[in-house]
Amino acid sequence: MENFTAYNPTALHFGQDVIQDLGNTVQGYGQRVLLVYGMGSVKSSGVYQQVMAQLTKIKAQVYEYSGIRPNPLLEDVDAAAELGRVKSVDVILAVGGGSVIDTGKAIAVTIPVFHSAWDFFTGRAKPQRAIPLVAVLTLAATGSEMNQFAVIQNNRSKNKLGFGSPLMYPRHAFLDPSFTLSVPPDYTAYGIVDLISHAMESYFGKGDASLSDRIVWAIIREAMEYGPALMNDPANVDLRARIMLAATLALNGITNYGRLSGDWGVHAIGHLLSVLFDVPHGATLSIAYPAWLKVMKERQRERIVLLGKNLFGTDDPDSFIRQLESFFSMLGSPVRLSQIGLTAQQHIQIREHMSRTKATGRHLALTEEDYDHLLALMA
Amino acid sequence: MENFTAYNPTALHFGQDVIQDLGNTVQGYGQRVLLVYGMGSVKSSGVYQQVMAQLTKIKAQVYEYSGIRPNPLLEDVDAAAELGRVKSVDVILAVGGGSVIDTGKAIAVTIPVFHSAWDFFTGRAKPQRAIPLVAVLTLAATGSEMNQFAVIQNNRSKNKLGFGSPLMYPRHAFLDPSFTLSVPPDYTAYGIVDLISHAMESYFGKGDASLSDRIVWAIIREAMEYGPALMNDPANVDLRARIMLAATLALNGITNYGRLSGDWGVHAIGHLLSVLFDVPHGATLSIAYPAWLKVMKERQRERIVLLGKNLFGTDDPDSFIRQLESFFSMLGSPVRLSQIGLTAQQHIQIREHMSRTKATGRHLALTEEDYDHLLALMA
Repeated sequence: MENFTAYNPTALHFGQDVIQDLGNTVQGYGQRVLLVYGMGSVKSSGVYQQVMAQLTKIKAQVYEYSGIRPNPLLEDVDAAAELGRVKSVDVILAVGGGSVIDTGKAIAVTIPVFHSAWDFFTGRAKPQRAIPLVAVLTLAATGSEMNQFAVIQNNRSKNKLGFGSPLMYPRHAFLDPSFTLSVPPDYTAYGIVDLISHAMESYFGKGDASLSDRIVWAIIREAMEYGPALMNDPANVDLRARIMLAATLALNGITNYGRLSGDWGVHAIGHLLSVLFDVPHGATLSIAYPAWLKVMKERQRERIVLLGKNLFGTDDPDSFIRQLESFFSMLGSPVRLSQIGLTAQQHIQIREHMSRTKATGRHLALTEEDYDHLLALMA
Repeated sequence: MENFTAYNPTALHFGQDVIQDLGNTVQGYGQRVLLVYGMGSVKSSGVYQQVMAQLTKIKAQVYEYSGIRPNPLLEDVDAAAELGRVKSVDVILAVGGGSVIDTGKAIAVTIPVFHSAWDFFTGRAKPQRAIPLVAVLTLAATGSEMNQFAVIQNNRSKNKLGFGSPLMYPRHAFLDPSFTLSVPPDYTAYGIVDLISHAMESYFGKGDASLSDRIVWAIIREAMEYGPALMNDPANVDLRARIMLAATLALNGITNYGRLSGDWGVHAIGHLLSVLFDVPHGATLSIAYPAWLKVMKERQRERIVLLGKNLFGTDDPDSFIRQLESFFSMLGSPVRLSQIGLTAQQHIQIREHMSRTKATGRHLALTEEDYDHLLALMA
């Protein structure tokens, strides 16, 4: 086991109608609220109206910034931070999925400074202070609601970078599983793929952490049991709740105790596909993970066998990878680039971008030869 | 699943030499330190000296209160709180096992008030404020280092009560597994029994929480794998680390997401044995748990079968309970009252105390008939 620090101060309010406590919680930080949300689905689902009712109740002064995209953009972070700075907001309220909450986190540390948020992501600056952030989750997937990380896409430099700081934990997160009822089947599936991928990225991290391994298996087995059930019965709030909790726990730290960090090599490949062709994050992972496991089959044989045994009861890594791929397919998430309609020219672009950005894991390095191999396997 | 709030702000510093950060951490709260510890084993183990070196480095003004007993007493809480109040301490530093940390928590909320800590435990008062608490753990068992609960014994009223408040989370907890190397075999075994019991109390709580169930199994399986290994190789710091982490996670909240609460009926019986005859807490649980499972065998058949299947691969509840009992015995923890040498007269005392204190679970009620049954099974 590696030395580690476990710290996660987010207060997570989970269950139906927890939104009733939102107003008082926000008011604890002040009346001037920067409300951040996405492309408008929160209005058609009615979540926006419930949030506004809470803010009206406390007579909050609300400044809205909307239009955050599924792969959230730096330009939105910087523009929203400017709005929050000018309006001297007391608190940021992010209502949406991981992209909106990630944006909220980046805004929270950018409001107090006079440079672009990108300086934090590139390591040129370190946040010293943050505006409090409260999150209302509407999509079970990224786990952003209970961690300190944000991933933001920079369309100018054509890359997507992650960054974390203890200042970026949401102070409170409200998770009502019924708020995810309007999520369409494809994004429901991507969320399940995403949470499984998060647990696996931890598992392939550095450090012999037996209990964290068992927690990884627990989370993935939960997703494997209730994920397909949810795809067949998407209006079932109880199933929504089980997947929502699994997604939160897959990236709130508990899979990583005793490790230096997760690996995140598959996410590096996935981010590259999102940046180039705006592929939804979960879809990139169902394509990249089976390919990555095949590439790592000899280098990580023991770990892959152990994972396959605990998830599918098989000692054969090929059988495990095949079954994982079938599982992703069954959910309705793509497992090949051909399924998302990429051209031969676009494959060349991917290959060039792999080399240019040196996409790799923190622990398990990816080589030029691996890139060739990965691309062929993903094709 | 039941609605729940997950909140745990403790910063847990885990691994060898984490004590090097203790001085700076304490200094963050001030220079006036109330140092609380037990019967002196921290001096013979050298932990006290390492703590003092950290406090000397920051030129802290240290006030000591020692002699906290394994079943911690209310009179110590109140006397230490008086010392802390008179000396206007900025921070409490609890160095020891669960009894010392529980005492530290009770002191933390009692210093700011002018009544006995007992008023919190009986519900006559509610804490409004707390002195910051920092913990250095020397015994893997109770999980107190990362939760908001304390259990204190009142020798006047002859009972042991638990109480919790979000104000009672240690702000920081330092867990160096090498600090547990001097724990003797019996207390090492009791710690393993205790952590397994905590996970099971959650499991038998109220609420259909599938992921929390899986986490319960993960923790108990970890203890079942590394517990016996540690008993055979007590100087192995890596094994100490695995058990230490399992003990922390068994009661830091993650086994309880989606439940209203754990059951705690077995602990109610255990506390009663501790109060009457000063039996170590873990030893009371290895005696009471198998008996309780036998009593609940029909009422909780489905849950007991599911647990047995996941821990021992058996569908037969009798076989599961027998194997659990053998496991506790193998560790060296008693499974019958006869093993701790209680007389027939003392059995009568236990039976009377069961009725008088109405020992029961929060979810699964224990009746007078159950008491008879339990006592016969524990004999």
